[in-house]
Order: sequence, then C-alpha cells, then structure tokens
Amino acid sequence: MGEVKVLGASLSFFCCRVEWALKLKGVAYEYLEEDLRNKSPMLLQSNPVHKKVPVLVHDGRPIAESLVILEYIDEAWKGYPLLPEDPSERAKIRFWARFTDEKCVLGAWAACCAKGHEREKAIESAQESLSFLEKQIEGKKFFGGETMGLLDLVVGSLPNWIEFLEEHGGMKLLDEEKFPSLYEWAQKFINIPIISERIPTKEELINYFQGGQNSRLTTGK
Amino acid sequence: MGEVKVLGASLSFFCCRVEWALKLKGVAYEYLEEDLRNKSPMLLQSNPVHKKVPVLVHDGRPIAESLVILEYIDEAWKGYPLLPEDPSERAKIRFWARFTDEKCVLGAWAACCAKGHEREKAIESAQESLSFLEKQIEGKKFFGGETMGLLDLVVGSLPNWIEFLEEHGGMKLLDEEKFPSLYEWAQKFINIPIISERIPTKEELINYFQGGQNSRLTTGK
Repeated sequence: MGEVKVLGASLSFFCCRVEWALKLKGVAYEYLEEDLRNKSPMLLQSNPVHKKVPVLVHDGRPIAESLVILEYIDEAWKGYPLLPEDPSERAKIRFWARFTDEKCVLGAWAACCAKGHEREKAIESAQESLSFLEKQIEGKKFFGGETMGLLDLVVGSLPNWIEFLEEHGGMKLLDEEKFPSLYEWAQKFINIPIISERIPTKEELINYFQGGQNSRLTTGK
Repeated sequence: MGEVKVLGASLSFFCCRVEWALKLKGVAYEYLEEDLRNKSPMLLQSNPVHKKVPVLVHDGRPIAESLVILEYIDEAWKGYPLLPEDPSERAKIRFWARFTDEKCVLGAWAACCAKGHEREKAIESAQESLSFLEKQIEGKKFFGGETMGLLDLVVGSLPNWIEFLEEHGGMKLLDEEKFPSLYEWAQKFINIPIISERIPTKEELINYFQGGQNSRLTTGK
C-alpha cells in the first residue's frame, strides 16, 4: 500500500473529506496537523503552488487540492468505490462537486460577509445554490444513491459550516422547511460513525473564530 | 457511438478544448453556435445551473463545464488517451488543469483589467502563475509528454488569449525570454492541423471586442 500521510488542519472543511475517503477505503494513514500561521517545511515543499491543506503524500508523492485527492484515492485504492462506473454518472458527480465548492461553500461565506444592500442579494444567491443541491438529494438516501459516494464527502461538512456562519452572521440559510431533503440527509450523514468522529462542529468553529484565529477556516482547498 | 452535439461559442476559450478532444478521439459531432446575448432554449435547458457554454450533449444527456466534459470524453470513448494511466500522473494533470483555469486564465484577465497601483501587482501575480506552467513544460514536447494530452488542450488557447489581452491592455505577460519553453510549445501547438482549424486568434478576439460584444469572451467555463 505504501506510506500515506495527510497534512491537514483540524477545522478545515476541505481536509475532513480526504480523511473520510481514506477511512471508507480502509487505508491506514498518518495525520499531521498543520499550524497554518506557521506552515511546516513539508507543507511548503509539498504544495508550493497554493501552500494550502489538505495534501496527501503517498509514498513520498504529494497530491494537493481536495477534489483532485479524492479522485486519486478512488483510483489508487480499490475496494469501496467513491465514484460510480458509468461515465455520465461520473460526470454528474464531478459537476456537482465543483458546484458545491464554487457556489455553496463560497456563496455561504459571501452571504455571511455581505453588508447592507448586498446582504439580501447574497443570501438569496446562496439559497438558490442550496436549492440545486436540494433537488439532487430529493428522494435519495445519499448523493451517491444507496451508499455514500464522493459527492456525499464533498457536501459533507457544509451543513455544520453553514450552521456556524448562520450564528456568526445572524442569518438563516439552510432552512429546514425550504430544504427538507438536504436537512434530512445532513442529520443522517453526520451520525455515521466514521463521519462523526472527524467533523468540525459549529461549536468548535465558533470557539476558534472567537479566538480571532479565523485564517484556518478558509485556507483549505 | 450515439448522437453528439456541442453547444458552443466560436470565440470561447473553453469551447475549443472540447472540440479538440472530440477530434482527437475521432468522434463525429454536430456543432451548434450559441448567441450568448440570446441563449437558446436548448442551452438553458441543458445547463440550467450556469447557463454557459460549452455543453456536450451525448445521446440526449447534457454535460457541462469544460474540464468535466474532457474527462467524460476520455472515459466514454476509447482510442486516443487524454489522461495517462497512472493515478498519480492523472492527479498531476487534474491539478494543473484547475490551476490553468483558476490562476492563469483569470490572472491574465485580472492583469488586463487592473488599474493604477493594482496593475503592477496583478501583472506580477499572473506572471508568477505562468512561471509554474513554464516549469511544467520545460524539457518536454507536450504537457502530456511525447503526445498531446488533456493539459495541452486546457492550456491550448491561453497564448492567443494572452496575446489579445496584452494588446488590449497595453502590457506584456507572456514574454518569450521569460517563458521560452511555454512560448516554444505554443508555436508548435497552434500549428497542429486539428488545433489551428479551430482556435480563436488574437485578431478575431480584437475584432469582436472592438465591436463591444465582449460578453462572449468570458462567459464560457
């Protein structure tokens, strides 16, 4: 199997999906916590372009960017499949994974930061993005169908992240009545043992953020 | 093989890579030019999320986003391989493809638009991104090694796009002396017949832009 290391930050949205994928595949790994205000030489050397976590190092070969890492994990280790076999189903998952990062994660953050006149527009836009995800999960057990797949791992920590942003920004995004299927999926997802043992909670995010050390929250990728 | 359609815009940076991939695979397709100021019902229905070109429609199933489409093409049709077989080599290509879109395409555009004090910083940042690509192509015939691969198609129209932005913005980004390998690759690449018959030239971009119809240039993905 070769030596596997994950360079991560415990509160990063983007790191836990990599660990979840390794756990689903049954791959043993060494986790190395990065202090993002004082990055290790190993991180700077492994990801000289973005200098961000997560980085997966497999047999000395570093791979950066969480979506790229997830595809790598699925290809490098057989066993539990993260992506379906059919090319058009695979394309759909890839599309929604990118959408989640580009529109939902960043959209929720933008809504939290927006001031005055822009705020309502940003909230509306974030909710429009969430409503696309709602349609994807409607009537399904997981985004992957009957079992968890890559998209479940990608959307995975979005609900906790949004809950934190809602409290921090004094707004409501992930309304249970507007997004019943997404809400139900989130409750089920975060109670799965391998997920719940490694997910940043709203409380942890708030504690960290109130400590003024918010750089760690958004520096992953 | 099934019916294949490409919804595109002739000057879009992101559309020609899809056509190049289909040509490399030897897949016959029907090309449908979109007027992006008056989008067709087919485009709006095929890509309701982003409403952007390119969209590949295979046997009635639409796939959007150029990087997702390229992976689909590689999986759906055998023959000419766009990605290497080795998982860690595949991960590298995916990493640099995302980097090209996120940092080089957008970075060059930002440098062209930046004013005053910000301009020098934006040019420096775009050149820093290009220098990463320069290192990737150094000593190689193609980004794919001995033959063109997915990353060649992704970087493909960047040189013409940059040449246009340089003229439009009165600046120099892709300096032959600073980026000799990238420059040499670009000369070779755009003279390959299936590439040269379908690439937006600097002159076409300038003509279009001077006509005040610049929306088509940046609306692809």
